Amino acid sequence: MKTVGIIAEFNPFHNGHKFLIEESKKRTGADYCIVVMSGDFVQRGAPAITDKFTRAKSALDSGADLVLELPSYYALGSAEYFASGAVSLLNKLNFVDYLCFGSESENIDLLFNIADILNEESDSFKRNIKENVKSGKSYASSRESAVFSELCAINSSICECDKEADIKKALTLPNSILATEYLRALRKANSHITPVMIKRIGESYHSTDLTEYSSATAIRNSIKKTSDGKLTLEDSVKNAMPETSFKLLNDKLLREEFVKEDILDNLLYYKLLQNKGDFTAFLDINESLSNKIDKATDKYKTFDGFCNILKSKDLSYTRISRCLMHILLDIKACNMQEYKADNFTSFIRILGQKKSSFPLLAEIGEDSEIPVINRLKDAEKILDPLPLQLLNETLAASKVYNLLCGQKNVSEFSLPPIIL
Amino acid sequence: MKTVGIIAEFNPFHNGHKFLIEESKKRTGADYCIVVMSGDFVQRGAPAITDKFTRAKSALDSGADLVLELPSYYALGSAEYFASGAVSLLNKLNFVDYLCFGSESENIDLLFNIADILNEESDSFKRNIKENVKSGKSYASSRESAVFSELCAINSSICECDKEADIKKALTLPNSILATEYLRALRKANSHITPVMIKRIGESYHSTDLTEYSSATAIRNSIKKTSDGKLTLEDSVKNAMPETSFKLLNDKLLREEFVKEDILDNLLYYKLLQNKGDFTAFLDINESLSNKIDKATDKYKTFDGFCNILKSKDLSYTRISRCLMHILLDIKACNMQEYKADNFTSFIRILGQKKSSFPLLAEIGEDSEIPVINRLKDAEKILDPLPLQLLNETLAASKVYNLLCGQKNVSEFSLPPIIL
Repeated sequence: MKTVGIIAEFNPFHNGHKFLIEESKKRTGADYCIVVMSGDFVQRGAPAITDKFTRAKSALDSGADLVLELPSYYALGSAEYFASGAVSLLNKLNFVDYLCFGSESENIDLLFNIADILNEESDSFKRNIKENVKSGKSYASSRESAVFSELCAINSSICECDKEADIKKALTLPNSILATEYLRALRKANSHITPVMIKRIGESYHSTDLTEYSSATAIRNSIKKTSDGKLTLEDSVKNAMPETSFKLLNDKLLREEFVKEDILDNLLYYKLLQNKGDFTAFLDINESLSNKIDKATDKYKTFDGFCNILKSKDLSYTRISRCLMHILLDIKACNMQEYKADNFTSFIRILGQKKSSFPLLAEIGEDSEIPVINRLKDAEKILDPLPLQLLNETLAASKVYNLLCGQKNVSEFSLPPIIL
Repeated sequence: MKTVGIIAEFNPFHNGHKFLIEESKKRTGADYCIVVMSGDFVQRGAPAITDKFTRAKSALDSGADLVLELPSYYALGSAEYFASGAVSLLNKLNFVDYLCFGSESENIDLLFNIADILNEESDSFKRNIKENVKSGKSYASSRESAVFSELCAINSSICECDKEADIKKALTLPNSILATEYLRALRKANSHITPVMIKRIGESYHSTDLTEYSSATAIRNSIKKTSDGKLTLEDSVKNAMPETSFKLLNDKLLREEFVKEDILDNLLYYKLLQNKGDFTAFLDINESLSNKIDKATDKYKTFDGFCNILKSKDLSYTRISRCLMHILLDIKACNMQEYKADNFTSFIRILGQKKSSFPLLAEIGEDSEIPVINRLKDAEKILDPLPLQLLNETLAASKVYNLLCGQKNVSEFSLPPIIL
C-alpha cells in the first residue's frame, strides 16, 4: 500500500487542484492521497472562502481519500511554519511514502540546494547577507545574492549567467518558496518521505484570468455582488472548477453562508481597541510594527483599508494581513515557540474521508506517533496539554470564522463526520 | 455663589429630569447646577441611547450649567460604586453646597439611618444576615430583615408595624437605593455637601406609560422600527421630553447614529470566545457566574437572549447585563480596587457647559483638589498614572460605543467643546 501526501488550502478547490491530486497518484503509483488542508483561515491572512468541511468535501469528490486539518497556527504561519507544521504532521503518520507539491520550477535539485543553504545558515551566508544589507540592499535581495554566492561555492556550474534568473524565480515565486520550505522541513525531520515536484499548469498564482486552469485568486475575484446585495459566481467559473466544488461554493453563496466583511471590519477594530496599543505578544509582530498599528488605529475603517495603510516596501499586504489575523485570533508568539520546540505539535483531526480510505485509518492507528481525534469530545482525554491547547486554538479560530459568517451557534462537536 | 450637584444618566433627558434640575435650584437657592452624568454606558448594563455629548447638550438646554463625565468604571458599577464615584467627584470639587436627588420616599431620616447601618456593618448586623441566609431566605431579604432589626435597636418607634412597608420600599425601590448610597458616600467622605431629597414625580422608574412625566424606560421603549428598518420615536413622546432633547434624539435616529444591536451581539460573543472560559478577572464576576457564562456560551445568539439565559432568582437581568458590559469593555475587578483605595479616583472631564458657567470653572481651578482636563491631549501631562488610566478606560469605552453605532473614526480628541 502506497500513500502520497499533499499540502493545500483549496481556497476554493479548482481544476488545478484536481490535476495535482490525480497527477500525484499517477506519478507515484500511490493507492491513497492524504491531504493536509488549512482549516478556516488561509496563509495570506484571510478567512477561507468557505468553511473547512465544505472544502474538504470538494477535495474528496475529486480524488482525495482523506483530508486532515492543518492547525490554525501553521495555516496562518509564515511559509516556513506553514510547511513545517504540515510536513511534521505527514511525517509523524509514519506511513506516508511521497509528498507531492506544485512548483513554477521543475528543477528540484536547485531547490534542494537552496533548502540546504537555508537550513545550514553558514557563517559565510549570514555574513554575506549582513554585508549586502549594509550596502543598502533590501533584506530579500540581500538574501537572494547570498544564496547565489553559496550555490556557486557548491557547484560553480550553477552560477553561469543564464541560471541567475532561475534562482531568482525559485526564491521569489510563491509555489517555489513553499516547495523549498517543504524540502527544508523534510530534511530537518530526517524524513523518509520522498518529495515529488509537479510543474504547475495553467495560470500563475496571482493571475486573474478565468480559464480551465484558473488560479484560486481569479476564482475568488469572480465573485460579484448582485443588485440586491447577494453574492454570486460568474458563469465562466464553471469551467475552472469541478462540478461538485462549483455547486458547493455556489450553494454557500446562495445561502449567504460566507464571511461578512463588515463583521470582520468590526471585530478586528474592537480587538485593536481592547489591546491598548501593545501588539508585540502576537506572532510576527515586532515593536516597530506594533507601534505602527497603534498609531494607525485612529484611521481604521476596514480590514482591507487598514492593510493598505500599514503596508510598506518592507512589509507586504499579505504579511500585514497575516499579522492582523494573528491579532484577531489571538495567535501568540510564545505559543508558536512552544509548538516549534515540540517538533511542531500535531494531532490527527479528520475533516473528511472516503469510505475506501478505511484501511488508511487502520494504518494511522497502528503506525503513527501522533494522536488521532476520532470524536472531538474525547480530545481532552486523548491529548497531552500542548496538542490539546493547539486543538482548542484551532477550534476557537473556527468559532470566530462562523461568527464572521453570521453563524454563532455552529458547534463542530455536533457536526456529523464527512464520509463520501 | 451657591452650587447644587446632580448625579444622572439622562437616558434620554426628559421632563422629569428638567423638573429635578429646576426644583433643585429652587429648593436650595443655588445659582448653578452641576451635573455628573454617566458617559456612553449606563448603570443597567447597556450602551446609552445617544452619545454622552448629545445627552449633555439636552441637559444644558434645560437648566444644567455644567455637565461632567462620570468615568465608565463608576457609571457601570453597582449602586454603591456608582454613587461613590459620583459623590467623590462632586466632593473633591470643594465648592458644591448641595446634592439633590430624587427618591420614591420622602423620609430622608429613615434613609440616613439605613445608610449608617450599612456603613457601620456592625457584628450584630452581619450575624443577623448570616442567620437569615442559613434559615433559607435569599440574601436580599436577609439583608432587609437585618436592617429592620438594627433600625429597631436605634429607635423602637421606627419599628411599628406600619413602617415595615416603608423600610422595604427604601431598600428595594431603585431611586431609594441610590439615594441611600449617596448618603452613605457623603458620610464616608465626611462631606460638607448637604443632601436634598426631592420626591419623584410622574411615572415610576420602570413604568412604560407615556405621559408628561414618562420614565426614561417608557421613552426608550417607544422607539419603533419602521417598515424600512429605520428607527423612529412615537409622536406621543414629544409630550414627555423638552423640545430640544426630543429633537436631538430624533435627529440621531434619523441619521442612524445609534447602537446597532447586531454589532453588540457580535462583539460580545467574540469577546466571550477570546476569553477562553475564565471571566473572574472582570468586575462583579465570581467563579460561579464565570462558569455559568462559560457553559452558556454555546447557546449564545444575542446579548439580550444571553442575559435571559443567565438570569436567575439570585441574579437579575440587570446584574447580568452589567457583568457582560464589564466583559465587553474590559472592566477589571483589580482596577476598581485600585480606584476605590484611591478614594475613588477622579478627574474633571467637561462634556459641556453654559457660557454663564465660566465663574464656576474659575472656582474649579482655585478650590478643587481634582485635576481638570481642559484639552484631552494635555491629559497625559496633567494626570497622575491612576486617573490617567481611568480616563483612558473611559475614552476606550466611548470608542467601543462609537463602534456599536457603526462609527469607527470619531475621535473625542477632535470634537469641539459644547458651549451653550
